[in-house]
Amino acid sequence: MTPFKLTEELLAEIEHLIENRQNASLREMMEEVHYADVAEIINELNEDEATFLIKLLDSEKTSDVLTELDEDVREAILGNLSSKEIAGELEELDTDDAADIVAELPKEIVQEVISEISDRDHARDIVDLLRYDENSAGGLMAKELVKVNENWTVLTCVKEMRQQAENVTRVHSIYVVDDAGLLKGRLSLKDLLTASTKSPIKDVYIAKVDSVNVNEKPEEVAKIMSKYDLEAIPVVDEIGRLVGRITIDDIVDVIREEADKDYQLAAGISQDVEADDSIWDLTRARLPWLFLGLIGGVGAAGIMGGFESMISQHAILFFFTPLIAAMAGNVGVQSSAIIVQGLANDDLKGSIGNRLFKEMLLAALNGFILSVVLLFFTWSWKGSLATALAISISLITVIIVAGIIGTFIPLFLHKRGIDPAIATGPFITTSNDIFGILIYFWIAKLILGI
Amino acid sequence: MTPFKLTEELLAEIEHLIENRQNASLREMMEEVHYADVAEIINELNEDEATFLIKLLDSEKTSDVLTELDEDVREAILGNLSSKEIAGELEELDTDDAADIVAELPKEIVQEVISEISDRDHARDIVDLLRYDENSAGGLMAKELVKVNENWTVLTCVKEMRQQAENVTRVHSIYVVDDAGLLKGRLSLKDLLTASTKSPIKDVYIAKVDSVNVNEKPEEVAKIMSKYDLEAIPVVDEIGRLVGRITIDDIVDVIREEADKDYQLAAGISQDVEADDSIWDLTRARLPWLFLGLIGGVGAAGIMGGFESMISQHAILFFFTPLIAAMAGNVGVQSSAIIVQGLANDDLKGSIGNRLFKEMLLAALNGFILSVVLLFFTWSWKGSLATALAISISLITVIIVAGIIGTFIPLFLHKRGIDPAIATGPFITTSNDIFGILIYFWIAKLILGI
Repeated sequence: MTPFKLTEELLAEIEHLIENRQNASLREMMEEVHYADVAEIINELNEDEATFLIKLLDSEKTSDVLTELDEDVREAILGNLSSKEIAGELEELDTDDAADIVAELPKEIVQEVISEISDRDHARDIVDLLRYDENSAGGLMAKELVKVNENWTVLTCVKEMRQQAENVTRVHSIYVVDDAGLLKGRLSLKDLLTASTKSPIKDVYIAKVDSVNVNEKPEEVAKIMSKYDLEAIPVVDEIGRLVGRITIDDIVDVIREEADKDYQLAAGISQDVEADDSIWDLTRARLPWLFLGLIGGVGAAGIMGGFESMISQHAILFFFTPLIAAMAGNVGVQSSAIIVQGLANDDLKGSIGNRLFKEMLLAALNGFILSVVLLFFTWSWKGSLATALAISISLITVIIVAGIIGTFIPLFLHKRGIDPAIATGPFITTSNDIFGILIYFWIAKLILGI
Repeated sequence: MTPFKLTEELLAEIEHLIENRQNASLREMMEEVHYADVAEIINELNEDEATFLIKLLDSEKTSDVLTELDEDVREAILGNLSSKEIAGELEELDTDDAADIVAELPKEIVQEVISEISDRDHARDIVDLLRYDENSAGGLMAKELVKVNENWTVLTCVKEMRQQAENVTRVHSIYVVDDAGLLKGRLSLKDLLTASTKSPIKDVYIAKVDSVNVNEKPEEVAKIMSKYDLEAIPVVDEIGRLVGRITIDDIVDVIREEADKDYQLAAGISQDVEADDSIWDLTRARLPWLFLGLIGGVGAAGIMGGFESMISQHAILFFFTPLIAAMAGNVGVQSSAIIVQGLANDDLKGSIGNRLFKEMLLAALNGFILSVVLLFFTWSWKGSLATALAISISLITVIIVAGIIGTFIPLFLHKRGIDPAIATGPFITTSNDIFGILIYFWIAKLILGI
């Protein structure tokens, strides 16, 4: 398989076909292209071209294309479609994707769009899904699933299943519920086929089934599904009724988004921007963190100003402040990143005390090696052993403190229910810069006896 | 579902049962526990306890447990098992997992272990998989799949499939090959069931099927499968023969590992360590990056030493070096991170020139806002407009240069086929520290006319 590649030439050709209204050629060309690739093309077209193409193609394809578009592009296109046309797209989609699109529509047209959906069961399922918080298992699940009643016979069950399965793209599991709709277990296709048609489902089903609560966080669902290698998981409400199903492809998106978010936070970028966003969006995502860095730098300058009297005798101390700040920042980011990752992957064992002690040992070891190297360098450069010692002893202290801060803050935030990922990057760097330089001058002052 | 939680009490209870050889209770207890959770337990036991538990339980369960263990724990346990016992575990596993374990075994026992596998087809498949690079689609795929010949009739096909499906845990697709084993297409279960039993497969199958080459990188396979929402993808060799199949659960692991690796590189940690690794492993992962930081700091100190003559007149310039270094580092990390992420997600469009120009505008905008704020601060602090101006103009220049370096380096590395993720974190920070401080003093010297 040669992956689809959107070239400048291809894009120009498509734009040319659209301009000349070559509908037949366009339709034929797009038939061969996967919907995810059509979405990639449409993201690059202007609004009129994009709307034209969406209206031209079958809604069987365009509905899937819509789910893959960038949010702003989708919004623009939907703004050019009638409520009836939008409803047509929604009919083709699974309920979870349809509900996501409805949630993005302007409030004033939601009512009309929903009323234009001719399949009323589908409309009801979409409306049901609108009730759930986007950031929960309920917001992630689809209503499409195959469920059978434990009181049915195998025969009824097979008949009912055939009907239900029509609406479900991929049947991962058959879920068994009781009369009240409570999830009781699952059914293997094999057992169903080998059992006598008259036996009640009660006697055939497997009573053990993994499920998640509608209020579970998407990250937790992702952890459970990837830990237990599940391709689908049923979702139950507060009293245990089966209300939906989450499939692994949605979870892949959750994992990617989560990773992207943590990565951006560590790099000092507020979440949810891409390289192709506008300069204004990118500025809003980056400036606050830089501002934090500015405050840290001003704080550091203030501290150095307080030690100005040392400058004539010990100028060399001031030359090493960027080094001290950088080391404090680097060590802090390293320790916080490893804690954030451990928390995200759920593999942190043992108490906070143990972890701080380990980080202290680790920082002391790293600090010692680095300090010895620096000692020889500074000693040979300026010839004063006392100054060289002062700088090196400060460095090792700063590294230990930075390691402890970097370990403690994410653990503390996590205990308080705050996302520890915000503690990485500029936050840790800035606070460690200030602490580092303060400690550095204190210790230097002490050792040099000024 | 209440997720399994490994408590200190539970662990103590299990250790107690093992110590007293309460085999029946242990077996009964573990029957209820998912293999991924058993692995979590065993990771916390000592070697003797772990080996005892593995030998006690059925290999149907322990084989899956082995695949989930930490590598060092698995190695220790396998070291205590006979070749026959290891072969017994491998028989229960899918070929991809079995091959991964064989690849970890000491070379001198591989031959013996393989010869102890009683299912010779399984042994052959495992040996086949050992030939592939771990970091390729071939290293990721399993041999378990359902394939039919295009020349068979539907009837033969159903008979053959039933037999093949026994070895395949989840049938995602039925693949169609020709007499030479070349992948021709796929078959939907529905078409198979509705077609006449005498019709040849040739007339029934769908000629379009996504596939990947054995040499494709795992990250590429992950991109393709998640872009096209595939739950399984067939793998073909250089001449198009169907050789294996990759399922989405393996891809979830690839995505997680890739994200973890990029995150650690951005934080200045060489890949593949966890918070619970030994202090020695953690030091080896962290020290090289800190050493890089040390060199950067020493470089910065050297540069400042070169401008020492300015210190008596303009001490304030020296107070702001940590700020300049921090801002250069932060901007560099922000711009490189967004490029690295764009490259990883394949959504960078347009030329390098355009991208650098955009980053320059962005950096200029951010830099301008920050410099104005800093100008007022420094002016009011020390009262010299010239110095304040010099610092602010330097800051904006440094931010622009840092942004350009941060954008250029990952793009350049990517063009050269090097992982751009290594350009984030300490690498960018250190080079930007040095450049930043150099530019800062040059510009200050120019403006203040020293």
